[in-house]
Order: sequence, then structure tokens, then C-alpha cells
Amino acid sequence: MDFKRCDQTVAWTALAGHFEGHGRGLDLREAFARDPQRFEHLSLQAPEVFADLSKNLWDGATRRLLTELARECQLEARRDAMLAGAPINTTEGRAVLHTALRAPRGTAPFSDEVHGVLDRMLAFAEGVRDSATSGIRHVVNIGIGGSDLGPQMVVPALDAFAHPGITLHFVSNVDGHDITPVLRRLKPAETLFIIASKTFTTQETMANAAVARQWFLDQGGDEAAIAQHFVGATTNLKAAADFGIHTTFGFWDWVGGRYSLWSAIGLPIAIAVGADHFRALLDGAHAMDRHFATAPLAENLPVQLGLLDVWYRNFHRFSSRSVAPYHQGLKRLPAYLQQLEMESNGKQVDLDGTPLPFGTSPVVWGEPGTNGQHAYFQMLHQGTDVIPVEFIAVQHPTHPHADLHAKALANCLAQSQALMLGKTTETALAEKAPTASAALGKLTVARHRTFPGNRPSTTLLLETLTPRALGALIALYEHRVFTSGALWGINSFDQWGVELGKALAGDLLPRLASGDLEGLDGSTAGLLKRLRA
Amino acid sequence: MDFKRCDQTVAWTALAGHFEGHGRGLDLREAFARDPQRFEHLSLQAPEVFADLSKNLWDGATRRLLTELARECQLEARRDAMLAGAPINTTEGRAVLHTALRAPRGTAPFSDEVHGVLDRMLAFAEGVRDSATSGIRHVVNIGIGGSDLGPQMVVPALDAFAHPGITLHFVSNVDGHDITPVLRRLKPAETLFIIASKTFTTQETMANAAVARQWFLDQGGDEAAIAQHFVGATTNLKAAADFGIHTTFGFWDWVGGRYSLWSAIGLPIAIAVGADHFRALLDGAHAMDRHFATAPLAENLPVQLGLLDVWYRNFHRFSSRSVAPYHQGLKRLPAYLQQLEMESNGKQVDLDGTPLPFGTSPVVWGEPGTNGQHAYFQMLHQGTDVIPVEFIAVQHPTHPHADLHAKALANCLAQSQALMLGKTTETALAEKAPTASAALGKLTVARHRTFPGNRPSTTLLLETLTPRALGALIALYEHRVFTSGALWGINSFDQWGVELGKALAGDLLPRLASGDLEGLDGSTAGLLKRLRA
Repeated sequence: MDFKRCDQTVAWTALAGHFEGHGRGLDLREAFARDPQRFEHLSLQAPEVFADLSKNLWDGATRRLLTELARECQLEARRDAMLAGAPINTTEGRAVLHTALRAPRGTAPFSDEVHGVLDRMLAFAEGVRDSATSGIRHVVNIGIGGSDLGPQMVVPALDAFAHPGITLHFVSNVDGHDITPVLRRLKPAETLFIIASKTFTTQETMANAAVARQWFLDQGGDEAAIAQHFVGATTNLKAAADFGIHTTFGFWDWVGGRYSLWSAIGLPIAIAVGADHFRALLDGAHAMDRHFATAPLAENLPVQLGLLDVWYRNFHRFSSRSVAPYHQGLKRLPAYLQQLEMESNGKQVDLDGTPLPFGTSPVVWGEPGTNGQHAYFQMLHQGTDVIPVEFIAVQHPTHPHADLHAKALANCLAQSQALMLGKTTETALAEKAPTASAALGKLTVARHRTFPGNRPSTTLLLETLTPRALGALIALYEHRVFTSGALWGINSFDQWGVELGKALAGDLLPRLASGDLEGLDGSTAGLLKRLRA
Repeated sequence: MDFKRCDQTVAWTALAGHFEGHGRGLDLREAFARDPQRFEHLSLQAPEVFADLSKNLWDGATRRLLTELARECQLEARRDAMLAGAPINTTEGRAVLHTALRAPRGTAPFSDEVHGVLDRMLAFAEGVRDSATSGIRHVVNIGIGGSDLGPQMVVPALDAFAHPGITLHFVSNVDGHDITPVLRRLKPAETLFIIASKTFTTQETMANAAVARQWFLDQGGDEAAIAQHFVGATTNLKAAADFGIHTTFGFWDWVGGRYSLWSAIGLPIAIAVGADHFRALLDGAHAMDRHFATAPLAENLPVQLGLLDVWYRNFHRFSSRSVAPYHQGLKRLPAYLQQLEMESNGKQVDLDGTPLPFGTSPVVWGEPGTNGQHAYFQMLHQGTDVIPVEFIAVQHPTHPHADLHAKALANCLAQSQALMLGKTTETALAEKAPTASAALGKLTVARHRTFPGNRPSTTLLLETLTPRALGALIALYEHRVFTSGALWGINSFDQWGVELGKALAGDLLPRLASGDLEGLDGSTAGLLKRLRA
């Protein structure tokens, strides 16, 4: 198929004119005054997720042009190609079918294989959860990147639905300061290790797996017991068997690492929350898949969010986006999104290999609110750069403290309000002045207490952070990233940028032992010498 | 005192010319080829921290001009004013004396008060650590922002030095999903709560403290036992006593929240690692303070790092910096630095209240390596934006797995090498091609596997992550932030940007109960209505 890249369209040129004309100068406060229905006009309901897009620096005209841009870029055809299993990951010659992992039986490609592994994995998870019989109280997932971040993000998010007697641990870093404090607190008989590596060759994962295996034996476990306490999320049955693992759950080359929590990589989630909740997680994602597949572009939430990302990145030239979940369970969502977005769209050539003349993935970062408010929110409000913020809130908590929940919600609403409204120097002058050095004039103090306002944000609302709602939320992000990647004309599904460092690490490892500096640049040689001193 | 702002100096104009002349076009690969001693010329040793600055986009001439800029801005006089206790936080009329918290007895202002509290706090911590007598196995710190992030960052970093029988927990978020899973796993008799709030009025902290107190009573603790299981890091003795707390440790108005881990706010650290290690943490910070106070500007590591930050932000116009600690114990360092840097320098007016015509604090973000390599590093290598990376590595681990440590180090060195060296399309063409769709030409595939290189990084090396080394590292960051803030002419010690949201949250909280929408903007009104539905 031959697709248009965003900057080769008529809509792109129209957007550039629109931006210069009044897009750049849009003032949110005036926009709300002008259009009392702005909230209704610029909010969208998708499965499980309501989105208020009205505090963003756009209007109906922007939205129409962006939607036209998506149409010109043939977003719908590209989406359909992905869903049908076309090999859209061209540089790796693969299909991209994480949506098939959450499709009901018989409704998507590879259904038999997918549901075969799923049924087997959920049955295994239920066996582990029967801790009276299994004796398992701790589960350690050893994996990195896509084999880590998904479960590591989901498990605390669904804590309210989790088995109270089983604690999940996540070891990913090849740095030994990761696994060491984890093992110190465990006993072999109570522990199940999941070795999560598609190829069973990932350097970090295999190094940590070897440490775990040796620890198990050193603590009195015997070789034969390894099969009971180690399982694999892998397709390399031979290597797993050599390790002593006989229970494995596989997946396929059309499951990308950063899209894999729906596959056997989700085993830690299934153990934490059980089969029914895991199926609800899949169902929620599937509901969002259907929305993405069928809703008109103008009403399609992942599409509209992806378009807004393009608008901000390529017209407003914003270089980052801050994510502020007002739910402590989502504390690892920003790290998860860093992988999902920045690994998918942090590219500088298009599908044809042509260098791109515009910016692609922004930096995605953040911490849960209200914590962020007491840290970097200062910069969001009064810093020199405009950084769009994404608020995520839940209507109903899964804890009994209604007063705390009301405070969290009031803070969430207040932050987007403050970013937009700002505070003029005149207002600050009229307020009671705070303690300040006597030498400082009133006007100076007021200027320090002035907020520019007109800073954009999106608010996503869920009813409750259930497994189903979380599944929908994650799928929303996946398809949003697909949307911006498709418009930018890039391959969102490869990651060649990780290969060079991997190769150079392979070269440097023996040099750390031998001290060979031959051919190294001066800095690397100098550091290596110091590390060996 | 009357200081020059960076853009009002002769050096600034010279730097602008230097940047246009060859600063912008500097190629690191050529620079190393031209100067075989570049590593030696551009690396610095400070107490406990060695810094390789040679992979940055600067040279001797840049460094001289930047150092001249610091001189013209009277950085030394400003530093001395801070250290002497002048009220440099003018908008709050306060001195800034976190350095006094780690100065040896009798060598800095307020020495008697500081060491009085310190001695008492460390004696208390040792009592708790004697868990056979105290019965304490879990310590829950309830605080937010500066009363949370410091201890939350330091405790895992010093895990190897920590009491094996006491687990530290950190509750900060007013969202009840934070405290709920923590309390579920605790027993009152084994638990000590630290309520950390200077004023004992912080909304989030007091809400969580009330939940903890009620939980304690509900679980069978009696009112009288509260005094044994709750202590305060606070100066509000009256409010603490009303709560039932009789053991408090105070601090002073010249201790800013984000500079407070050295004060009574460090109590959780002291309980985790003990009095001697806490004193070593202070000693390390003090050693860096002495370096900052006495080393010539050109050899002064915090100064040179701060100057590089200005160079990148105002000339190269980089909008963010990524921090990659190759030590899992430093997993919360990026969040800590977000507060330290972005709350200090995320400002848009100078000391006089004049709007600044240049960028101030960048976004600081990151995850531990090697984890980041399997996530967002794709974007660092092949994304469209240049993002300077800060690597942190330790020569010797505090765990016994030498092979893992070598792998972590090899990866750390390889990443900075890969960012700098890149890979040409010609090299990629000559390599064995990976699996790709047959339709894709070899050149296209090679372009996907091309790396631009010339991407800058700093590497900081510590011998071992001891308490002393960590103290020095944190103080290094504090003084670096002071340096860039001083050059930008801003007040790095206030945080007026957090006030507006706080006030608006106070307005919205009763509206969530009443449903009163009067005077609200359409978006806030719409969201509030939905949340009440």
C-alpha cells in the first residue's frame, strides 16, 4: 500500500495556515467565554473512558482539519491493515496483532492458538493462587522492557482486586542491586519465578535467572524442584528445558514486546488478580479495539488524541507531555507510556527510510498527582515552556476513604483549572501579600505570584479502576500511538535504535576484564581505565 | 546586592557568537580525533564523584566563556551569601541554609540548634532500630513533596546498609489508593508512623495521618499507645500534641522542603541505616559543600555542570535532560531531581519580577539503566530531538554478583559511546541485514538502522554507593541547580507556582459535595457534574 505522509497532504498546508491565523493565538479563557457549549463540543465518550478535550489549544475548526488530515493519510485503511494481520511492521517483516490477543474466540486471526495458551495460562495461574495447595506466597517476574513494564504497571493498578496472600516482585535490571534485595526477603519453598523472555536469550533476564536459580539451590532447593518453582513465558522450549523449566507459555512474532501484556507475558497479572479479572482486562481492551475499528474518525477517541499529539508536536512544537494519574495505583503508568510511545514513535525516518523533516515522539513523563503538585508542577504553572498535561481520574475509588477521594478529585480539577485560568499580576496585587523581604516592592512580589495561564490539558475519567477499565485505558494509548505514528509515516513497531548499544556492550564486556583499549574513543577508554583501577 | 543576569553580560554575547561560529556545529567524533587529551581536559574530580564531561557539545573555549559568564554574574559572591545565611530567598524573606544541616559542630550558622536536634533524632532512631526492645518492624513515613521524596529516594539507594528487620514505607498521595495497600499489610504493635509536615497542616499529610490514626485505633491500639507509635517531624508542637504525638523533631524556616532530607525529615533514613551511616551521608554532602565553596570556578564540578545546563538550555535550546542511573537503588533519583530542579528553577521572572526572555529549568526525567535501554532509549538514539543524557555508575557494587555488575557497566559505557558514535548508513548497509519484508530495499532497511550520533552525555562515577558518596552526589545536584538559577537571575528557593492550584482545590472541595457550579468554567463544571453523577 502507498500512504501519504502527513506533511504531503492538503490538510497539512491548511493546518499550517490555520495555526498562523488563529491557532497559535487561541486563548482558552476567551474560547470558553465565546462558546458556552465548548465542553460538550470537545469531549468524547469511549468504552470505559470519558475524555475532556476542551481545555486543549484547539477548536472545532482545528479538529475538522486534523480529522481531514487523518483521512488524507488513509488512517482507516492502515488501521484495517493492522487489524487484519497485514505485515505492517515492514522492517521486521511481521504482522502486528496484539488486538488478536484480546479478541473473543473466533473473531480474530490466530484465535485457536491465542485461546489455547490463554486457557492453559489462566488455569496455571489459578493453581498458583490456590496457595493452600501451591504453597506459593511470592512470585518474582524476571524480564525486562516489554516483559516487565506491562505487568509491573498493571499489578499495583489492580491491587484492590489482587490475591491478598501473594506478593508480586519484578526484577528487570541487569544491575545486581535489583535482584539482591528481592531475594534477601524470600524463601525458596514459597517462591515462584517467571522467566519472561521470548527467545530465552535476553542478556539481562538470563543473567538474573541464573542468579535466581543459584540462589534457589544455595538455599536448599534441589535441581528436581526447579521445575516446580520456575516457569517460562517463552517460545524457546529447548533453552528453558536446559534451565530445568518444563512449564512454558508461548507467544508469537506478531506480539511486540511493548504490546505483550495481553499474552503469556501477562502471567504475573493473572496470578495477582485471577482468571476472571484477567479476562475482564482483555475485554476492556477489546471494547476499545472495537471503538477504534468502528467509530467515525471525528468521534474516535484514540484517533482524536493522536491528532492532538500531532498538532502539539508539529505546530505548537511542544517537546514533551506530562502524564498525571490521580490514582496512586497508576504510579508506573508514565514509565509504561515512555516505552509505549517513545520506543514506538521515537524515529527519524519514514517507512521508506527517508529522513523526516518534523518532530516525532515527544518526551512523556510524570508522577502521580497529588505528588507531582508538590514537586515539578511549579514548572508546569510558572516555567518558561508550555507542557500539555494529561490528568487521569476515577469517579469511584476502590478504598473506603471517601474524604480522601474527594480531596484527590478536587486537586485534580483544580490543577487543570489553574493551568488554564492563571492569575494576573493585578489579581496577585490585590491579594494579601505573603511574607517577603522588606526591600521587595509589592509589585515585584505580585509578579512572582503571577501565572500566565492558557496552559493546555486533557482530563480522562474512568468510573472505577477496574480490570476492564484499565484494559480499555491501555488499549486507548496503544491506538493513539498508532495514530500519530501512522500520520508521521513511521514504523511504530520496530526498535532498531536499541541495537547499536547492545552490540557495543558486547564489545566492551570482555574489555572490562582484559583492559584492552584498542580503538576506543578517548572518553570510553578513560572511563574504562578508571572503572578497572 | 545587585547582580547581573546572564543575558546582561559581555560573556553572554561572546557565547552567542561562539555558538554561531562553531559551538552549534561541534562534532564530538572530530573533537576527540583533534584532541587526544580531550577526556583529561574535560573531566573533573570532586569529593566522591568523578565526572566525564568530554562527551558534551563543548570545548575548552566554551568552558572558558561559560566560566567567565559565572564570574560576571558574581556567582561566587552569591554562593557566599547563601552559605553565610543572607536572606537570599527574598520573596519569602528567608535564608537558605541546608548546608548548615551538614556542617560539623561549630562551623556554620545555627550549629547548636542543628546538632541538638540531630543528636536527639539519631538517638531516637537507634532506639527504634533496637527492634528486640522497640518491637518495631515497619516504619511508615507520611509526608509529601520535600517531606517524602528525599527519604523515599535515599532509603532504597542505601539498602545494602539498612537494618534487615525493619521495612520502610512511604505514603504521600492524598489519593487513598496510596495508604490503603500499605496499611493492609501492617500490624499496629510493630509499626511506627512518622508524620512529616513542618506546619502539621499539609492537606495530604494530615488526611493520611488521620486515616493511619483511625486504623491504629480500629486495629485495637488504644489512645495512650499513640504516643509510642506516632512521632512528628514538625515544628507545630501544639497540633502534634492534640493528635497524641509527644515525640517531635523540629527544623527551621531556612530549611526548604526540597533541601530537607538532611534535617529531621531524614528520620526515616536514620532509622533505616542508623546514626553512623546518617552522619556519613551528612559528611559526604559537607565535603561537596566545601568543594563548591572553595574550588576555583573552572574546577568546580557543580558550577561546571550548572554552566553546561545553561549552555544546553539557552544556546542549544534543549528542552529536557534524561538521567540514567546504572544502579537500581537510585530508581527514585529522577523523581527526586524533578523536584529539586524543576521546582527550584521552573520560573519565568527574575528576582526583580521581570519576565525572562530565555528558557529556565528543562524537564528532567529518566529511569534506571539498563531498564531504560529496553524502553525509551530508542528515542534517545533515533528520535528527532537531541536530549543530553546523564549516566551515573558505580565502580564497586554492594552485592556479590561481579558478572552482573560487569554487564551493567558495559551497558552504561556502551550507551554513551553509541549516542556519540552513531552508525552511518554505509556501515549499516555493510552489515548482515535483518529479517525484513521482501519488498523493502537494502538501502531502506539500512536507513532504519542508521544512527545520527553526536548526541551528548555526561558520565558521573562513584566508587561505591556508600552513604558518604550519596550525600556528595545529592549536594552536587543542589549546588548545580543553585548555579544555573543564579545565572538565570531567579529565586530558586520559593515555589509560588504551587499556590494557585492549592487555593482552587480549596474552592472545589465543597463544590464536589454541594454540586454548586456557579462561576466555574465550562470544562471544570462539566467534569464536576460527571464526577457527581
